Amino acid sequence: MTHDDGEFALIARLARHLTGAGDDAAVVPFGGGRLVLAADAVVEGRHFCRDLSSLRDAGWKALAVNLSDLAAMGPVTPRAALVTLLRPVGCPDGDVDELYEGLAEAARAFGVELVGGDTTAAAELALSVAVAGELRGEPVWRHGARAGEVLVVVGALGAGAAALAAATAGREAEPAHLAAHRRPRPLLAAGRVLAEAGATALIDVSDGLGQDLAHVCRASGVRARVDWASLPVADGVVALAEALGSDPVALVCGGGEDYALVAAMPAGVAEAAAAAASAAQGVPSAVVGEILAASEGAPLVALEGCGPVRDIAGLGWDHFRPQEQQ
Amino acid sequence: MTHDDGEFALIARLARHLTGAGDDAAVVPFGGGRLVLAADAVVEGRHFCRDLSSLRDAGWKALAVNLSDLAAMGPVTPRAALVTLLRPVGCPDGDVDELYEGLAEAARAFGVELVGGDTTAAAELALSVAVAGELRGEPVWRHGARAGEVLVVVGALGAGAAALAAATAGREAEPAHLAAHRRPRPLLAAGRVLAEAGATALIDVSDGLGQDLAHVCRASGVRARVDWASLPVADGVVALAEALGSDPVALVCGGGEDYALVAAMPAGVAEAAAAAASAAQGVPSAVVGEILAASEGAPLVALEGCGPVRDIAGLGWDHFRPQEQQ
Repeated sequence: MTHDDGEFALIARLARHLTGAGDDAAVVPFGGGRLVLAADAVVEGRHFCRDLSSLRDAGWKALAVNLSDLAAMGPVTPRAALVTLLRPVGCPDGDVDELYEGLAEAARAFGVELVGGDTTAAAELALSVAVAGELRGEPVWRHGARAGEVLVVVGALGAGAAALAAATAGREAEPAHLAAHRRPRPLLAAGRVLAEAGATALIDVSDGLGQDLAHVCRASGVRARVDWASLPVADGVVALAEALGSDPVALVCGGGEDYALVAAMPAGVAEAAAAAASAAQGVPSAVVGEILAASEGAPLVALEGCGPVRDIAGLGWDHFRPQEQQ
Repeated sequence: MTHDDGEFALIARLARHLTGAGDDAAVVPFGGGRLVLAADAVVEGRHFCRDLSSLRDAGWKALAVNLSDLAAMGPVTPRAALVTLLRPVGCPDGDVDELYEGLAEAARAFGVELVGGDTTAAAELALSVAVAGELRGEPVWRHGARAGEVLVVVGALGAGAAALAAATAGREAEPAHLAAHRRPRPLLAAGRVLAEAGATALIDVSDGLGQDLAHVCRASGVRARVDWASLPVADGVVALAEALGSDPVALVCGGGEDYALVAAMPAGVAEAAAAAASAAQGVPSAVVGEILAASEGAPLVALEGCGPVRDIAGLGWDHFRPQEQQ
């Protein structure tokens, strides 16, 4: 799910009350194994709108973004999901059916059982989802990246943001961009492959590559350098930015909702890991940059190769900020 | 959490998409053990209001009602909780702190870790909570009650509803009633004791004894008879109903939010189980009635000893119904 600066401050505030918070999911020892838990909510008008997505798509996405959080922990097999429906008075049964059909489709697609949940009346239509997965190996946190390692991105960047940008500009979005926006696919197999290859840090790209890499850098006490030319950008995204007269970097590195994975790992294993992750998921991947030692005054996440060097740590979508400031 | 007729229809509708739904919590085999999962949300103005509860109370209750669902599965040790905060724009940080302080207090009180969650902007302030527990023994479902068994209630009935009723009537609520409304205590130890004693069906009384017993009866294909005089009614509840000129049965058996437990079990073990559960939790308990064979035309949940026999299966709180019909 996308987050924002206000939300990050809030999360830091809440972290005082939480155990082990601050990663994509929590790991809890359980019955001789380890349980991985994550939760994420989608609210109509904030995370989905009926102009661009059917309610069936919204249901799919509500579960898929949670599973992406599990994928970002590495070798996780999703097991069960709980769904709490917040339902406005007057919301027709047919709408609820569509949401749950989409949830059920995603559950079947990714091998997770919808085991229960809650329903309550509310002002806005929303789905609050929690997922439980089984860790099969060691988790990969955000805080393990080390200077000298390289960065691997698995999954195409910018497609979901391009669909939104096209729609906002009153243009017809490309079918592939719309599909990415409506039905993101959590890269669970890639998470396993990257972990097995020796990833030292892993995160899913939900807020935009810049923001999510910044989380890894802050947690790991390092900085990052990203090569624009090497990024696995979805087809048509840069062309759309040019047609709209907008910044391609904002779409590719700050649009969010890519549900790609980005990992730090030793240089010697990165090409093979990227290739294996691509093969496992049928998505592009690339070695896109490197981890550098922290250095005061240097950009936290330096993007090179697209004009002057830019710090993209702050690029990203902010759903607490008023819409007109977005 | 309280439910209603509209919500029960909705739950039946959604159950098509769910695995193993229709009980207080779901049981999932996991890592050689069994995981128990439940989710429940509270929305400001619907499940809590600041006139009667602090936000700290609301945070406590949001977790406690989830743990009550775990208790209703029998021998469950709560382990972890995920909290999703829906936060209106303009909701002060201090309010959020209070909610999380209450959540953290309940987490400490009942031995559960708050491991993470999500935050999102929304129109209404709400907490959507999911809990994971460990099953240590066999779960007790709603569907195991058999004719000839007796009914045991653990926990006092009517106090939370009395607090609400007093406030609605513009009277000062009794401190003990307010405490029950603000800070319900999940009867986890009683759940274990009842399961070990041989309970065949178990549910927590969140919607009112009438509705919750009706769930057990429908799931088990039986009916129930309840003795008014034997119910463990909280002190002062009947007196309040008399003072307000209202129906004591509605408060005691239909007010909801008792978070008591009601179990069916063989008659021979019931008195000892009730006493042990009371001792474990420091709450009253009683053998309150019996399970009868289903019989067409007979009341599903017959209340005897308070005027003519009444079917209390339909008594209960309905949070989808407009307020004026409540």
